[in-house]
Amino acid sequence: LPRFWWVNHKKTFREEVDGGYLWSPKTEISGARSQFYDNLRIARPGDGVISYSNGLIKAIGVVADVAVAAPKPSEFGSRGAQWALDGWLVPVVWQKTQTAARPKDFLAALAPLLPAKYSPLQRDTGHGNQKAYLSEISAEVFNLVATRVGVSLPNEVEWKIKASSSQAFIEEFEAAIESSIRSSTTLTVTEKAQLVLARRGQGAFRRHVSTIEKACRCTGIRAPELLIASHIKPWRYCTDAEERLDGSNGLLLSPNADHLFDRGLMSFDDGGQVIVSSALTKESLAKLGIFTSNVGAFLPTQAPYLRFHRSHILVP
Amino acid sequence: LPRFWWVNHKKTFREEVDGGYLWSPKTEISGARSQFYDNLRIARPGDGVISYSNGLIKAIGVVADVAVAAPKPSEFGSRGAQWALDGWLVPVVWQKTQTAARPKDFLAALAPLLPAKYSPLQRDTGHGNQKAYLSEISAEVFNLVATRVGVSLPNEVEWKIKASSSQAFIEEFEAAIESSIRSSTTLTVTEKAQLVLARRGQGAFRRHVSTIEKACRCTGIRAPELLIASHIKPWRYCTDAEERLDGSNGLLLSPNADHLFDRGLMSFDDGGQVIVSSALTKESLAKLGIFTSNVGAFLPTQAPYLRFHRSHILVP
Repeated sequence: LPRFWWVNHKKTFREEVDGGYLWSPKTEISGARSQFYDNLRIARPGDGVISYSNGLIKAIGVVADVAVAAPKPSEFGSRGAQWALDGWLVPVVWQKTQTAARPKDFLAALAPLLPAKYSPLQRDTGHGNQKAYLSEISAEVFNLVATRVGVSLPNEVEWKIKASSSQAFIEEFEAAIESSIRSSTTLTVTEKAQLVLARRGQGAFRRHVSTIEKACRCTGIRAPELLIASHIKPWRYCTDAEERLDGSNGLLLSPNADHLFDRGLMSFDDGGQVIVSSALTKESLAKLGIFTSNVGAFLPTQAPYLRFHRSHILVP
Repeated sequence: LPRFWWVNHKKTFREEVDGGYLWSPKTEISGARSQFYDNLRIARPGDGVISYSNGLIKAIGVVADVAVAAPKPSEFGSRGAQWALDGWLVPVVWQKTQTAARPKDFLAALAPLLPAKYSPLQRDTGHGNQKAYLSEISAEVFNLVATRVGVSLPNEVEWKIKASSSQAFIEEFEAAIESSIRSSTTLTVTEKAQLVLARRGQGAFRRHVSTIEKACRCTGIRAPELLIASHIKPWRYCTDAEERLDGSNGLLLSPNADHLFDRGLMSFDDGGQVIVSSALTKESLAKLGIFTSNVGAFLPTQAPYLRFHRSHILVP
């Protein structure tokens, strides 16, 4: 069943709605967790979202893909300069409303339906809750607002056709990093080539991984043409060439396992226990042929990378 | 069991051995089939290869991946200018020999072991067979030559560690095309962006495919976050923007099916019957969870692309 969300964009309404996504830092600048940020990882494809900024509702959307760990979008520019660079991005198919609705205008009907905790608006004044970013709301709130602005959710086929996948955003982030590698004045031509090849799991990175991992831990497949060299700590998050090419920062996985691991829909504990994201249904898991039996303990040199994957990439 | 091969490089010894591959056109310039070229699609990871050029054996190698359809490597330059641009590439882990062996010097021992048909050398003179490129030889020939040059095949672990995958070569070819798209003076900024996104199955291409295909034909998966928009006629082979963005030139596939289809290890007939490459073992197929039941007939608009896939991409 879909859930419903309300986003207080504050300064980034235009970027997020035109760009087709939601983005938040992973934590407060202090490092403290925020339910409003954690909610990005709870949102699932098909969920409804109400967009609120400057006192107005001007767009309604449908979540198009599960969240992906991503740096702050460059088009935010100096806005949100105080935000941590590392965040969650959720692709959304937005639909701008014909007329803007002002929640204060129908606060009497709205206020009793707002949640007691983590409300997007102050129930007495109708002002936006300063701390709020993404709040969960009930279907009643969603329908009340949708009626006011005369918009209904597009049907499943329609939003799937319009959807951007998280992968498209990742491509964009990574292309910017690749371009900065290519224009580096401190790396040699060979180093640049290896770092670029490593982005796709090829070249020196794959060779280094192959000295440590011999088969897909999930399927046991050993045929090289069926295996993908996946970074554990993603290429875009590696801080230097060493991490990007480190054989301990990789696994050889068959394509389904690679996709789930790369998208944070699956991870492993250090002992080899499979961790499955709640975003993945049992039905999908079975269709993908992924079993959740132990895949074998990891090496001490792999453990720090796996820790990063569990805390920064895995969609819980 | 591995098979054994003998390549007459002629003009491209250095490029192929330093580059870690074998490359041949798909057909004679007349369009006629050649067993010497077809053999590239028969070679499998683990097979042994003897390299012969200018009357000498100077390298021995192990096939590292199944063939992939690929244009003529740019480093061939004007060599082989008469060859068709479209060919097969097989990654090989080459090992140069300490001393070069001259087959003419041990022709008495070698000649009786050479095949009657498609022999790499003329059995009476020891001259290279002008028509030959990749010839199948017996284990006896391979061992005789290997003993002469004092080289043995690296063990499986060793060659897997050194192996380049076909994907690495594809990345290189595609990067060159992407770069020419980016520097085009006739395409708009938006068109360039869509064509580059299409390379990774994203953006307009994915949306167009989604209007035609609703689920993975192999697994029935509908969750957008688990599906990849694959080109049927690969992006690198499309002749224009229309083909690269055409929704009829795509399928939505789960990652395993996408990988097999993309690598030519699987294809479909127009009626939806699955065609499995002989390069894929039954064991691997089962581990990948791919079933060979009919996936449903394709549309007339998809058929020409599928025909290209079967004749140019599928590894038989």
